[in-house]
Amino acid sequence: MVIIADDVVPVALDLMGGDRGADVVLQGALKAVVDDGDRVIAVGVPALGERIARDHAPLVAAGRLAFVGADDVVTMDDQPAAAVRSKRRSSMRVACELVQQGRCSAVLSTGNSGAFSATASFVFGRLPGVARPAIAALVPSLGATGHALLLDAGAQVACTPLHLAQWGVLGSAYFAHSFGVARPAVGVLGNGEEDHKGTALTRAALALLRQTQLRVTGPCEGRDLLHGGVDVVVTDGFTGNVALKTAEGVVAFLGQLVKNTFTHGSVVDRLGGALSRPGWDRIRASLDPRETGAAPLLGLRRPAFVAHGQSDAYAVRCGLRAARRFVALDVEGALATALARNPVVRSTRLSPTAP
Amino acid sequence: MVIIADDVVPVALDLMGGDRGADVVLQGALKAVVDDGDRVIAVGVPALGERIARDHAPLVAAGRLAFVGADDVVTMDDQPAAAVRSKRRSSMRVACELVQQGRCSAVLSTGNSGAFSATASFVFGRLPGVARPAIAALVPSLGATGHALLLDAGAQVACTPLHLAQWGVLGSAYFAHSFGVARPAVGVLGNGEEDHKGTALTRAALALLRQTQLRVTGPCEGRDLLHGGVDVVVTDGFTGNVALKTAEGVVAFLGQLVKNTFTHGSVVDRLGGALSRPGWDRIRASLDPRETGAAPLLGLRRPAFVAHGQSDAYAVRCGLRAARRFVALDVEGALATALARNPVVRSTRLSPTAP
Repeated sequence: MVIIADDVVPVALDLMGGDRGADVVLQGALKAVVDDGDRVIAVGVPALGERIARDHAPLVAAGRLAFVGADDVVTMDDQPAAAVRSKRRSSMRVACELVQQGRCSAVLSTGNSGAFSATASFVFGRLPGVARPAIAALVPSLGATGHALLLDAGAQVACTPLHLAQWGVLGSAYFAHSFGVARPAVGVLGNGEEDHKGTALTRAALALLRQTQLRVTGPCEGRDLLHGGVDVVVTDGFTGNVALKTAEGVVAFLGQLVKNTFTHGSVVDRLGGALSRPGWDRIRASLDPRETGAAPLLGLRRPAFVAHGQSDAYAVRCGLRAARRFVALDVEGALATALARNPVVRSTRLSPTAP
Repeated sequence: MVIIADDVVPVALDLMGGDRGADVVLQGALKAVVDDGDRVIAVGVPALGERIARDHAPLVAAGRLAFVGADDVVTMDDQPAAAVRSKRRSSMRVACELVQQGRCSAVLSTGNSGAFSATASFVFGRLPGVARPAIAALVPSLGATGHALLLDAGAQVACTPLHLAQWGVLGSAYFAHSFGVARPAVGVLGNGEEDHKGTALTRAALALLRQTQLRVTGPCEGRDLLHGGVDVVVTDGFTGNVALKTAEGVVAFLGQLVKNTFTHGSVVDRLGGALSRPGWDRIRASLDPRETGAAPLLGLRRPAFVAHGQSDAYAVRCGLRAARRFVALDVEGALATALARNPVVRSTRLSPTAP
């Protein structure tokens, strides 16, 4: 029994550019619409619109699913700035414009995350004092909330200390608002816990963060990410992306080791494997990156969500749910308040909005 | 039954500066000497020498264990260049000098890795054409050899494209020599598989590597590290350290999840946990970073090994074994040959040897 709130504002979903093709993304939208009572406006090449009208007429008639056509598609090979400049009718651009026009509450894309970040920045503009948005990825943690927030997970490769300090403020406010933690512990990702370690970037970012009202724990290491001692881990988008994908790789690697051990091992191994299966399944589910679905681009004036390029239908559905929650919680309001309270990190002379 | 080769040249072991104290490092030396038939010259503050002479007189008399005193200790808070400049009688410096004098075949330290790298560079000098040494860390992998090599794992934070390209040549030669792989696959760690991704550093390093005779696969991602598609992963010491420690953190995190699930779960969970214990113990052993023990500093004229600051006695023993194998395989000879074959990566105008 799904409760449908007819007044819910739909989420704009970019069907194009994901690694698994538009059909998989559309399947995710259908799950969200049918199973979760979501409303979605899907954006893609015109042929998809014809198919949606034909195959899903009842959902379209009920106003649960709509389609808007776009002429261009941003590929994984497109450079961010070039995508914004030359693909003005791309599906991700059109999807962002639906939010900007007030027809949608948030936008989600599984496409080229750098190009999407640049496009969303261009269409929405940034929150006052923010130079660049960051992808804020939730990772599992042994801490009290069960989560830690890593940002930037890949939106911005070339960073300044001010970028990192701004993301500390944004990440802290997001984490506090999402998990009811009054003062989240904020660390800067580096190569050691001593203050003299790290790069010029991480040391300067830490010095800036220590001038804010945040609870700053200092430099932290890769192994602290999941250990619960720190809630918000700030880093440049290159390092953050490497850390996140390394963590995903280790989980996949261990899953393979476990499978090999308990399906090809001795009789005891195989029996133990069979009996420990439910436990393993729970562990695997708790680590499934699809559950998080998508990560918000923090620092923009409207909610934009980046989903993994390899997202399957289930991940897209979870991503749409995450976007809806973000809107319902009014995270953007909390972010603007946090920025106003920490003027030391505000960019005063911003580069032009266009990338 | 331990076979003792009386003509084996001892390894110099820095007793000081590790996180667990000199006693733990000494215990590792004793294991190596007693169980593996190693010969070790331990270097530390004079009080340790008195204790060794008193408590381990038979080993000392047999020439298996010796002690050399040092007045200074490099701490984790010392900056690398300052340690070389101002602590000229530090235990790590004295240990390196034992190798330089021909009294030892290799040196191992669990102390400040940046300071040790700078000290060993200063005392040994670098191989012709190498600007900086790199910590070459073996990680487990699903590939044919069961290993991948990550370098630099933390010796050099500020890097140039030439540094990374040199490490590609050194890492490839080391991997080929150690595992009998003719042409290891070499990748540059980055934030995506497309050539336009990455930083100016990674793109320029890749362009240089493509001018060598190596088998270069292109940019690789954090998740490729353990997946077997790439044998040698090149990166700057900051990013490499973050990736390595993130991977360690995920393994520890999963171990904790497994423990919680199978010791506090349902009856089925606990029974499954008990029966799957042997399999899980094998998995844990295969991932135990102590087994690798220590990582060589590739690019120096003499073998120097960096062990984890938190190494326990078992890790120190494994590290001494790794150093002995490295010497026996004449890895340094293979490295010099590889550098001579790839002149495009040689530094012609080197900065002075002293850091």
